[in-house]
Amino acid sequence: MAEKIGLAPVGLGRWAKVLARGIQRGDAVELVSCFSRDADRRRAFQEEFGIERSAATYEELLADERVEGVIITTPNDTHRDLIVQALEAGKGVYVDKPIAHTLEDAVAVLDAVEATGRPFAVGHSARRLAGSRVMKAWIEDGRLGDVSLAEANFSNERGLELTTETWRYYADRSPGGTMIQLGVHHADNLEYLLGPVKSVSAHARRLYTKAEVPDAVMAILEFESGALGYIGCGWASPGVYTINLQGTKHNLRYDLDFTHWHESHEADAHSTLVSQGYGQSERTPVELPRTDMFREQLEEFGRAIRGEAEIEVGAREGLRALAIVHASLRSSERDGQAVEIAEVLDAAGAGTRAA
Amino acid sequence: MAEKIGLAPVGLGRWAKVLARGIQRGDAVELVSCFSRDADRRRAFQEEFGIERSAATYEELLADERVEGVIITTPNDTHRDLIVQALEAGKGVYVDKPIAHTLEDAVAVLDAVEATGRPFAVGHSARRLAGSRVMKAWIEDGRLGDVSLAEANFSNERGLELTTETWRYYADRSPGGTMIQLGVHHADNLEYLLGPVKSVSAHARRLYTKAEVPDAVMAILEFESGALGYIGCGWASPGVYTINLQGTKHNLRYDLDFTHWHESHEADAHSTLVSQGYGQSERTPVELPRTDMFREQLEEFGRAIRGEAEIEVGAREGLRALAIVHASLRSSERDGQAVEIAEVLDAAGAGTRAA
Repeated sequence: MAEKIGLAPVGLGRWAKVLARGIQRGDAVELVSCFSRDADRRRAFQEEFGIERSAATYEELLADERVEGVIITTPNDTHRDLIVQALEAGKGVYVDKPIAHTLEDAVAVLDAVEATGRPFAVGHSARRLAGSRVMKAWIEDGRLGDVSLAEANFSNERGLELTTETWRYYADRSPGGTMIQLGVHHADNLEYLLGPVKSVSAHARRLYTKAEVPDAVMAILEFESGALGYIGCGWASPGVYTINLQGTKHNLRYDLDFTHWHESHEADAHSTLVSQGYGQSERTPVELPRTDMFREQLEEFGRAIRGEAEIEVGAREGLRALAIVHASLRSSERDGQAVEIAEVLDAAGAGTRAA
Repeated sequence: MAEKIGLAPVGLGRWAKVLARGIQRGDAVELVSCFSRDADRRRAFQEEFGIERSAATYEELLADERVEGVIITTPNDTHRDLIVQALEAGKGVYVDKPIAHTLEDAVAVLDAVEATGRPFAVGHSARRLAGSRVMKAWIEDGRLGDVSLAEANFSNERGLELTTETWRYYADRSPGGTMIQLGVHHADNLEYLLGPVKSVSAHARRLYTKAEVPDAVMAILEFESGALGYIGCGWASPGVYTINLQGTKHNLRYDLDFTHWHESHEADAHSTLVSQGYGQSERTPVELPRTDMFREQLEEFGRAIRGEAEIEVGAREGLRALAIVHASLRSSERDGQAVEIAEVLDAAGAGTRAA
C-alpha cells in the first residue's frame, strides 16, 4: 500500500488544530511535520497530534521530501510569501481563507500557481456544508425555480474583543474587518450557488469595535444572472450564519449554529434547512446528510497532490471571493456606488484570468 | 352614552373588507356609510357589513354629517385628491399605506393636514404587531444593547400574477413595484424601531414579472444613529416577512407567517420572536401578547377624531416611509450611490417638515 499523503501545518494556532483534528478523523492524509517560529508551540503541537518531527525553519520544512503539501493558517498578510515559497519548492499548498489580504497578493499567488502548476487550495469550506450542497442541488434540479433574491449573514462578537495584540485589529493587515474575516465565506458561498457576481454596492462602518476595521458591513451583489444577493456581516453581536434563497417555485432558509463550526463532523447536525412553497404556511424541514468539511477539503487537497482528485476551490475562486470583499470596501468609499468585480480584478493585474 | 364614532370606507375592494372586519371586532367605531363608484359593489358591501346607507358620489359621502372620518383603500395614485377633498370637508382621514404614490402627492397631503388640522392616519399597521412592539421594548430597555445591523424582508408572489388590468402593473401608478407595495412596510417598521434613516443605497430590478415595475429590490439604509439597515423585497417567490436585529447584547429574529396577515387578531399567533444571547446555542422564544393591528389603528383614528387619542402614524411618518422608497429608486438609477432622505424630501417640497 502506498504511503499516506504527507502534509505539514504552518502556523500552529487554534485553526491549525481544528484542521489537524479534521485530518485525523480520516486516514487518507497524515501530518508528517509542522512549523511555527515558536519552538514551544511546535513541541506542544507535535505532542498533541503525535507528529513525528517538526522544522525549525520554513526552509527546513520545505526541504523535507516527506512533506508533499503545507497547510497555511498564519495571519492573512503573511499568506503570499509562504504560499509562493512553498509552490516554488514544489509543494502543494492549502491556505485558510481568505487567499490573501490584498488583491495584489492574491494575484501574485495566482501567478505562482500558474507558473508552477502545483496543487493549490483555498479553505472556503462552507460551501461543503450539507446545507450548501442541498441548496445547490435544489437550484440545479429546478426545484427552487428562478432565484431573484439571495440573502446571507455571517456575524459574531469578535470585533468587540479585538486588542492591539491581534493582527485582525489593523486595517493594513486585515482590511475590511468583519467583511474579510466573515463576509468572504458568503462571497464564495453565493458565487458557488448562483454563479459569478458582476458588481457590488456596499457600506462598511466602524461602530462598536475598538479596532481600526469595520464591524458592520452590508453589501448588495448583482449576479451576472440578474439576481440580487445580499451579504450582512457584523462583528458586534451574538453569532449568526444564515442563507435565504427566494425562487419562483420555493424558498429555502438555512441556519447554522456557528458554535459548532469548528467541529465540522458535527456542524450539519446543528444546522437546519427548511423549504417553503406556495400556500404552505408551515415550512418543511429538508433532510441534511452529514458532511465533514474540513476533513473533506484536506483529503481532496491531498489526493490532488497525488493526481487523484480535482481541487474545487483554487486560486481563481479564492481571488474572486476576495474581489467581492475589496469591491465592497471600494464601493463604501464611493458612498455605495456599484463597483464591478472585473474592474477590481483588472486593477490588481488579474486581467480576465479570474473572469 | 355618546354615539359611536362614525366612519365610512371609500374604495370597497378586498382591503376595505379586511379593515371593516377589524372594526367590527370592536365596538368603539361604527361604519355608517360607504362609497365606491360601482353601485353593485356598494350594495354588496352594505349588505355584507350591515351598513345603513351608502353614497352615490364622494361629495354626497363628505356631506353626510354622520360620517366623521373616511377610510381610503383606493389605488395609490388616487389617494391625494380623495384625502385632500375629505380633509377640506372637515373629515378625518385614514389612508392605507403608502400615503401616496409620489412624494409630490404626499407633500400635498401634508400641506392639507397642516392647513386643515384634521386628524390624518396612514395604515402602517405592521409596527403594531406584537413582535414589533416587543422588539421596540427590548431596544428601549437596553436588553438588545447597541444595534449594528437590522435586516428586514417582505416578499410574496404577486409580481408573477400582475396583469394589465391591475393598477399595480404600471410604473406611473405604482412606482417601485414590490418596494412601494411591500418594502414600504419595513421602511416604517425600521424607522419605528431604530429612528430616522439618513440615506439609502439600493438596486431595483425587473426579473420575472410581466409588469412595468421591479419585482426584486434590495436597499441598504444608513440610520442617523450610525446603524445599518437592510430591506429586501421580492415579488416572485413564496411569502416572507422577517425582521432580524443584531445588538451588542442580544439578537432578535422575528418571523411572521404572512398568510394570516389579513386576520390581524390572529397574526401574532402565527408569528415567532426568538432571542439569542452570547454562548446560547439554542434560541429562546420570546412570548408575544395578542394584538389586533387593524382594529387598533382604526379605533385610535376614530378616537383621535373625538380628541381622545393621538395618531401614531400620521402624514410625517407616511411621508418618510415613502421617501425611503423613492430614495431607493433614485439610488438604483444612480447605480447604488447613496441618496439622502433629506434630499428627496426637500426636492418634493417638504423642506424640513418631515425631518
